[in-house]
Order: sequence, then C-alpha cells, then structure tokens
Amino acid sequence: MKNFTFQNPVKIIFGKNTIPQLAVEVPQGARTLIIYGGGSIKRNGVYDQVFEALKGRAIFEFPGISANPDFETCLKVIDLIKKENIDFLLAVGGGSVIDATKFIALASQAEGDLWEILTKNKYPEKALPFGTVLTLPATGSEMNSGAVITKAETKEKRVFGTPLVFPKFSILDPETTYTLPTEQIANGVIDTFVHTTEQYLTYPVGGALQDYFAEGILKVLVKNGEQAMKAPENYEVRANLMWASTWGLNGWIAQGVPEDWATHMIGHELTAFYGIDHAQTLAIVLPGLLDVLREEKAEKIIQMGERVFGISDGSRENRIDVTIQTIDSFFRRLGIGTHLSNYGLGKEAVQKVVERMKERGWALGEHHNITSEVVEKILTKQL
Amino acid sequence: MKNFTFQNPVKIIFGKNTIPQLAVEVPQGARTLIIYGGGSIKRNGVYDQVFEALKGRAIFEFPGISANPDFETCLKVIDLIKKENIDFLLAVGGGSVIDATKFIALASQAEGDLWEILTKNKYPEKALPFGTVLTLPATGSEMNSGAVITKAETKEKRVFGTPLVFPKFSILDPETTYTLPTEQIANGVIDTFVHTTEQYLTYPVGGALQDYFAEGILKVLVKNGEQAMKAPENYEVRANLMWASTWGLNGWIAQGVPEDWATHMIGHELTAFYGIDHAQTLAIVLPGLLDVLREEKAEKIIQMGERVFGISDGSRENRIDVTIQTIDSFFRRLGIGTHLSNYGLGKEAVQKVVERMKERGWALGEHHNITSEVVEKILTKQL
Repeated sequence: MKNFTFQNPVKIIFGKNTIPQLAVEVPQGARTLIIYGGGSIKRNGVYDQVFEALKGRAIFEFPGISANPDFETCLKVIDLIKKENIDFLLAVGGGSVIDATKFIALASQAEGDLWEILTKNKYPEKALPFGTVLTLPATGSEMNSGAVITKAETKEKRVFGTPLVFPKFSILDPETTYTLPTEQIANGVIDTFVHTTEQYLTYPVGGALQDYFAEGILKVLVKNGEQAMKAPENYEVRANLMWASTWGLNGWIAQGVPEDWATHMIGHELTAFYGIDHAQTLAIVLPGLLDVLREEKAEKIIQMGERVFGISDGSRENRIDVTIQTIDSFFRRLGIGTHLSNYGLGKEAVQKVVERMKERGWALGEHHNITSEVVEKILTKQL
Repeated sequence: MKNFTFQNPVKIIFGKNTIPQLAVEVPQGARTLIIYGGGSIKRNGVYDQVFEALKGRAIFEFPGISANPDFETCLKVIDLIKKENIDFLLAVGGGSVIDATKFIALASQAEGDLWEILTKNKYPEKALPFGTVLTLPATGSEMNSGAVITKAETKEKRVFGTPLVFPKFSILDPETTYTLPTEQIANGVIDTFVHTTEQYLTYPVGGALQDYFAEGILKVLVKNGEQAMKAPENYEVRANLMWASTWGLNGWIAQGVPEDWATHMIGHELTAFYGIDHAQTLAIVLPGLLDVLREEKAEKIIQMGERVFGISDGSRENRIDVTIQTIDSFFRRLGIGTHLSNYGLGKEAVQKVVERMKERGWALGEHHNITSEVVEKILTKQL
C-alpha cells in the first residue's frame, strides 16, 4: 500500500425528507445565494422544499447553470455575489451545479485573472462556504473538493481541486431522483462506474480494503443500474445508487493506491469539442483503453472480472476479453453507446482529440505512458 | 436504508516514516502534552521518533496510561494540564491511550463532577485539541469520536462520545506494529472483527454498500490475521490490518444500517469484574450471542457465511451453525479462547454479569431485547 494523507470533512445528511434540515444547516443570518440549473428542480418539487426550509431568510437565486458548467456563466454569478454581499452558497442540483458552485465559491474570493485558478492552480486563501442539495447521483462532487469547468469560448475543459471547496454539508434525498430521465440515470451510473475503475483498474499494490470497497461500489452499480431505469420509484435501488455515487469519488477508495484518470481526460476532450455527455465519453473511452492497456492492467482486470462479474473460467487473455466485453455490454444495456459512430463521429474526431493531446504534451494514466499515439489507438478501436 | 447524518473530519496520515510529519501537524507554539502507556513506545523507537519530530517545542509527558484506562488516572493528567497550561495533547499508543486522551481533552474543559461526563453525557462546550500516533491497530479510536473509560474504584466501564473529541489528525505507521506481542495482534484483529459484526450482523435494510464494506473489512481480517502473527514484518499484512481496524469503527459502515453492540456491552462487564482483555471478552460473547439470537440475525449470518467464508451448502440452520463455528474457530486459531473456562471462570461469573445487567435494567441489541435473561443464556453457552 502506498503512503497517503487524506481528510474528508463533508457532513452527509442522507435519506427521505431531509431537505427541511436546510433550516438548521444554512447559517442563520447568512445572505444565501441558491445556485441551480435548468428548472428540473422546479418540476420535481425540490425548489419548493428548499425555499420552504429557508422561509424568512435573505435568499437570492441564480438559475441557468448548464451541464459542463462554463467559466463565463460563473463570472456572472460572481458579479451577483459581490453586488449582493452574499456570504453563503447553496448548490441545488447535480455535479454541474455543484462544480460551478465550487469554482464560484473560490473565484469570488480571488483577484486577477480567474482563469488561472484552472490553468495554474492559483488559489486564493479562502472560499465562500457552501452546502449542496444533490438531485442527480453521478459525480461525487457533493463529497469531494474537486470540480471541472469549461471555457465556452475556447472549448477547454479544466479540472481543479483544493480542500477549500469541500461542501460544509450535502443533503442526499434519494426520492429527489425519482423523476430523473432514464438517460441521466444511466449517465450517472456510468460516471460512478468509471470514477471507480479510474481508482481501481491500475496495478496491484496490496490495498486489499480499497479493492473490496471499489468492488462493492461496482457491484451496487451493476445490480441496481438497470433496475433504476425500470422501476424509478424503488427507494432501495435509488438510495444504493446515490450512496454508491458519492463513494465513487469522495476520495477514500483512492487512498494508498495508484490512480489512472486517462479515460476522464480523453473523454473531457470529446465533450469539449462535440458536446457529448460526460458519461457517454467515458463509455466510449474505457473499453478501448482497457483493451489497449490490457497487459499493464491485466491483474486488476482479471480480479474485477472475477469479483464483480463472476468471470473465473478460461485463459488469462480470455478472462480479460470477457471482462472488457462485459463492461461494454453493461454500458450498452444502460442505453449508452460505446462507439464514436453511435454519436455520429468518425476518424476526424479521433484526429481532433489526438491533436489536442499532442499540443498539451500529456502522458496520461497510472504509468504516465498514455501519449497522443496511445490515445489514437484507443479511440480508433472505438470508431 | 435508514436515514442518517454523519461527518468524520479526522485527517489520516498513513504509511512508512510518517511520524516526522508531527513537526507540521502539531501547532507551532503549542504547549503539548504527550500521553502514552507502559513504555513499549520507548522500546520500539516510536518515543524517540516523536521527540525528534518535536525537538525544540514546549513538550510535557504523562506516561502510564493502562489498558482499560481509568478515570482516576485521567484526573491526574487533568491536574498536570491545568498546572502547565497545556494547549495541545498528543496520544501515542493504542486505543486505551487514545480513549484516555479523549476523555482528558474533554474533561479538562469541564466543571463539576467529571464522572457525569460518562454517566449523564454532560459535556462541556469545547475540548482541548489533540492528535494521535497509533501503535496498536484495534479500536478505531484514532478515527472516531467515542471512548471507553473505567472507574477503578467501582469497576464501572462507561462509554461516551461527542464530535468534540474527533482527533485533529492521526498518524498510522504500520511499521510501528512490527514489535507488538502476538497476543495484542490477535486481540486487535478480534476487536476489529467484532466492531464490524456489531454494525453488520443485525437484519437487512438494503444497505448494499455498507454490507460490502463490512464484508471487505472482515475478509481482510480473516486473510491477514494469522499471517500477521506468523510474519511480523510483512508490511502489506500490517498495513491492511491497520487500515481495516480504522475502518471497523470510523463510523461510516454504521451509517444507514442498524447496530447491535450487545457483545461489547456484555464484554465490558467481564473486563470490569475480572480484568479479561477487551477482545477476549468479545471472543467469548459473540459466538454465544449469535447462537442465541440466530433467528433474528439469520439472514445476515447466512450472508456473512457465504460472502466472507464461502459457506453456501447445506440447510439454512446448517449454514448458520457452520458460520458461527467458523467465527469461533477463527478466534481460537488466533490463540484467543472463546469460553469462560479458558479464563478460569465459571457459573459465578455468569451470575455476576447477569446481576449487573439486572441492576442496569438494560435491554441490548438492535431489537432492544437482550435482557439479563438473554445474557444468562448467552454466557451459559460459553461456560
């Protein structure tokens, strides 16, 4: 096991009818800005529950945070924060709303070129405090200190992270997910699945507990993913998916073990160029990446096959093949295509991503050997 | 899954050669009191590492915290704290030292009858901040906010807990455990094992992830427990045991599921009356308790048998029997007796514990149905 230092102070409030606890968790007297997305929270009643809990408080709101939240919109929110002397933020939504809120919490306290927070990790010394009400289980953003922000102007998708942007609390009510479109459920399951494999499908370092935890998350997704789409109001299914998605990226399963994240980094470019949903890009990239890197990831792929999918027969090569095929078919059973052609893309998309990788000079993955040439091989397999 | 609210802010610093990080973690300028036990940290070099890391600081020390740390000794430490204006505590040792430090951290800030902290949950508004250097993996105290303190005078063992006594940081260096006596390793494995079953062997509520995590901890213990005794300097084995023991009682596996804790409460009385090691009392009580409560715990016992021990053949009753026997024989293979007679105790010990249970009027367990009569049945099975 590798050495590590980690702390995750996020307070989790989980379960049915937990949104009223905002009345206790949002500081009394705070001028609070509620940040949300496109209006689904108005249709599913979450918006009303939030406002009911905070009745009589100094509340402001900023709707309209989009998927793959953009830097430019965040700047508008920061203007509002300064104008209204906001001192607490409440993100109500999924990972995009929470990620935007994290950036806004930090950037609102910074001076100078705010884009350098994302390109040069230039962080101010403090951030505005904020809480979250999660309505879309997927990114784990509700219990971590990272976020992804896109510059719409240049189609650049960037990641940042600092303990300053751990939420003070996150409210997770599985019933808020009953009304999600099936495609968003599927995306969330795949996002969590690939978060987990990024921290698990590398090489063995003897982190037995971390492996069991990661495999537990994957088994929950495999068992409940399709069920969630078929039976939207099954509380147990939705509760397990919601809790698993938080654990997929709250940091604990990564401690003491290697991490990959190449699937995410390659996928981000497909989203930035073509607007493909984040999870869809992961579903495209992961099967190809595992096939191209099958030798260096062999032990963990075989372990995952055996422990998550029960694949224990056949030769080493055969077990690797079947495990990758099983992952691929799981994604497809959720209704998410695993090939570029499913999204109307071809060789030119491969070239565009490869060119950007070249520009960046990145060498991704746990062995830092996924260069632009390797990315080309991976995406070509997934044409 | 049940609703829950939880937060665990402890910073974990895990791995080889991590004790020097005390230089960063202990606040500069703090008047720091180092609290430790019987001197094993002097023999294994941990004491020297701690003092080297804190060279030049205002350091005080209080040695001599015993197993099952007593209220009376804690009062002496509090006198020293007041006399020397101590403002930071550092626990160096196992669960007993850390538990004592938690009580001291809290009680040193309280007024009045300090025993009421333990009997009436009368907590002050703040506690002295403290960190820990863990040298004996067992109790999980390094990453939780509870502790057990014994009044030597009346042989009363009491539990308390408040978020005020979460450690600020805990340093976990598996190499510090190489020199532990095999009996202490065995005790630590059993302590962690029973912490986990207290939060897992109840009744199903659909907490799939919690179950997988608990089963992961149990599998790590079963795989590494005996190995640790045979090969004391196997880093991987010691690292996995240390990390599993933290997870056995850092609170996360209990969230959203029922908890039992009857084995602990019954075992505490055996320790209080007869000085039997805490883990030994758990090894005595658990097999008897599972047998007596086999009907209400049936589903989870069968699940544990299958997933942890691979027991999948036979009738329902047979699977329950074999699972309980397998737990019992695991404890005995670690060299820990599971019957009162192994410790020279007989029926009079059963009566003494039963009498105390009657006095307390407790009804223990996840269904609050383990009355003194049930305790008598459990302990009689384990004569």
